[in-house]
Amino acid sequence: MRPKITLKKIAKEFEVSISTVSKALKDSNEISKDLREKIQAFAKLYNYKPNSLAVRLQNQQTKVIGVVVPDIVHHFFSMVIRGIEEVTNKRGYNVMICLSNESFDKEVMNIDMFTNGSVDGLIASISKETQRKNDYSHFKNLLEDDFPLVMFDRINEDFNCDKVIIDDVSGAMNATSHLIETGCEKIALVTTPNEITVGALRKKGYVKALQSHGLEADTNLMVEVNEKQSIREQIEELFDRNVPDGIFAVNEVYAVTAMNVAREKGFKIPEDISVIGFTDGPISQLALPPLTTVVQHGFTMGKQAAELLLDRIESKEDIQPQKIVLSTNLKIRKSTKSV
Amino acid sequence: MRPKITLKKIAKEFEVSISTVSKALKDSNEISKDLREKIQAFAKLYNYKPNSLAVRLQNQQTKVIGVVVPDIVHHFFSMVIRGIEEVTNKRGYNVMICLSNESFDKEVMNIDMFTNGSVDGLIASISKETQRKNDYSHFKNLLEDDFPLVMFDRINEDFNCDKVIIDDVSGAMNATSHLIETGCEKIALVTTPNEITVGALRKKGYVKALQSHGLEADTNLMVEVNEKQSIREQIEELFDRNVPDGIFAVNEVYAVTAMNVAREKGFKIPEDISVIGFTDGPISQLALPPLTTVVQHGFTMGKQAAELLLDRIESKEDIQPQKIVLSTNLKIRKSTKSV
Repeated sequence: MRPKITLKKIAKEFEVSISTVSKALKDSNEISKDLREKIQAFAKLYNYKPNSLAVRLQNQQTKVIGVVVPDIVHHFFSMVIRGIEEVTNKRGYNVMICLSNESFDKEVMNIDMFTNGSVDGLIASISKETQRKNDYSHFKNLLEDDFPLVMFDRINEDFNCDKVIIDDVSGAMNATSHLIETGCEKIALVTTPNEITVGALRKKGYVKALQSHGLEADTNLMVEVNEKQSIREQIEELFDRNVPDGIFAVNEVYAVTAMNVAREKGFKIPEDISVIGFTDGPISQLALPPLTTVVQHGFTMGKQAAELLLDRIESKEDIQPQKIVLSTNLKIRKSTKSV
Repeated sequence: MRPKITLKKIAKEFEVSISTVSKALKDSNEISKDLREKIQAFAKLYNYKPNSLAVRLQNQQTKVIGVVVPDIVHHFFSMVIRGIEEVTNKRGYNVMICLSNESFDKEVMNIDMFTNGSVDGLIASISKETQRKNDYSHFKNLLEDDFPLVMFDRINEDFNCDKVIIDDVSGAMNATSHLIETGCEKIALVTTPNEITVGALRKKGYVKALQSHGLEADTNLMVEVNEKQSIREQIEELFDRNVPDGIFAVNEVYAVTAMNVAREKGFKIPEDISVIGFTDGPISQLALPPLTTVVQHGFTMGKQAAELLLDRIESKEDIQPQKIVLSTNLKIRKSTKSV
């Protein structure tokens, strides 16, 4: 991809602010006729790409919004999409979804495709590879272009855009505290590698809860699951090292796998070992015993992200970006003991 | 939506074949210059919509394919999409997904949006509401326009387009026969209402297997699940009527719910009751005991559908539509007895 001309680059060329360029391209009277014409000619010369701003300028709304997610096999992302659909359909928009499959290149390609004039705005959650590479230039270009963007769940804190996240730290704290308060003393953590921000935040909550109850965080009780290898075997290794009496897992697959490993080793759930997961999907609901879990409210998250995006698309004025932090709650089922 | 002008209607107007119209619009020398110009002028006058044909005429391939599926919460559809992605990415195409959410109106809207020039071809699986209404005019319009279309899983047999399905009847027969051959005599069926074609086909296989083993199909042992009500309660009612010693369920949620109901009523799996599901997703794999299941090969189905579509898009000639029927296989785990 050859470098795109952006509002920022035009602003630099003319030694004016981005907002002046934006106004000039919108043909606003606030900018002198001479400067307006020069900026417009320059943008045209360098083939300034029709983005939502240019599209809005020509009043050609597509009434479609784009969604870029890492994956749809996970229940959480499919619930977010349901929430997005709920709001967009009510407000007269359609939704197109592209998957990054956790790949940086695909994420870049998807965003490039969507912002070629096919959608009015974008809702995105960052791929694992992008988080590892720590390269966000494709998102930064959008923001420089004033392209309506809402990020959810896996976000970049530094971006000046609308964001919807859940309070991962508190969610994990509540789960771990519940295990402690129902009598667990050796609580294991089954999490992702640390570069996955949500995994890192949930680990933080787990450690905080232990410390606030005067317990030590023991790395021997922690598993950072490498998904290229067998999840089950990595959890079996935890049991070989150190048998826990409570397990907090950062998703439902890890949690139910841990529960199955424990039962096969002859432990009773929850009498011998209590288990709490994250995300309240069908795997948690259909487990036996049904899994106590941190409810992540994917549906609500999707609805909120869509409301923010459509408000931004439909607004005639500049709106300050918002960050919405949703609280989780603990759904207590039968994989944990009563207080 | 006002009626669209189609290749077929133009052909009728000029009393020529659809292929002649298609060639005339492609400006082929095979058609007389006079007729070509008349047809082109007519198409222009009636605002003949730029579809993939017109797009290809202008050599403006989008290198994007559209996918319309009822739902992504079900593991099966998300695996099909993974298969589609696998092939399209290798062959240099991107994928955009729209959900019908099982709604007829949304399906119509999605297809209209995609065929407005944003994609080169379409892969679709029909919504439940469309199947109930039995109204397929939106798909028929595409076919009349020669728009590249591949249908999978929930298809319409009458359409002259590429199709990829699994052999649902044989899959269900094998599952039911396996239950009979491992000693079950009172085999229940947990299925969808009959208007869902895959449910009807699987019921057919179940009945066929019973009959071929000299057993009667007993409606008292069949549940047609109404998803607007509690799945669990409908299965509990089955147990109140007539306790089975084997259960064949047409998806994994029904199967694991049935297994849980049975266990809560004190039955042992598989000693007292054997259970087989359909679709090999994480719910089946993480169940305890892990579920014996008919493997549906969603990933393969997606790959095949994508190959058919891209071959059609890239071909310069007319290709005869193909129907690919994938065989299922039975994955035997621990929810059924040994032979």
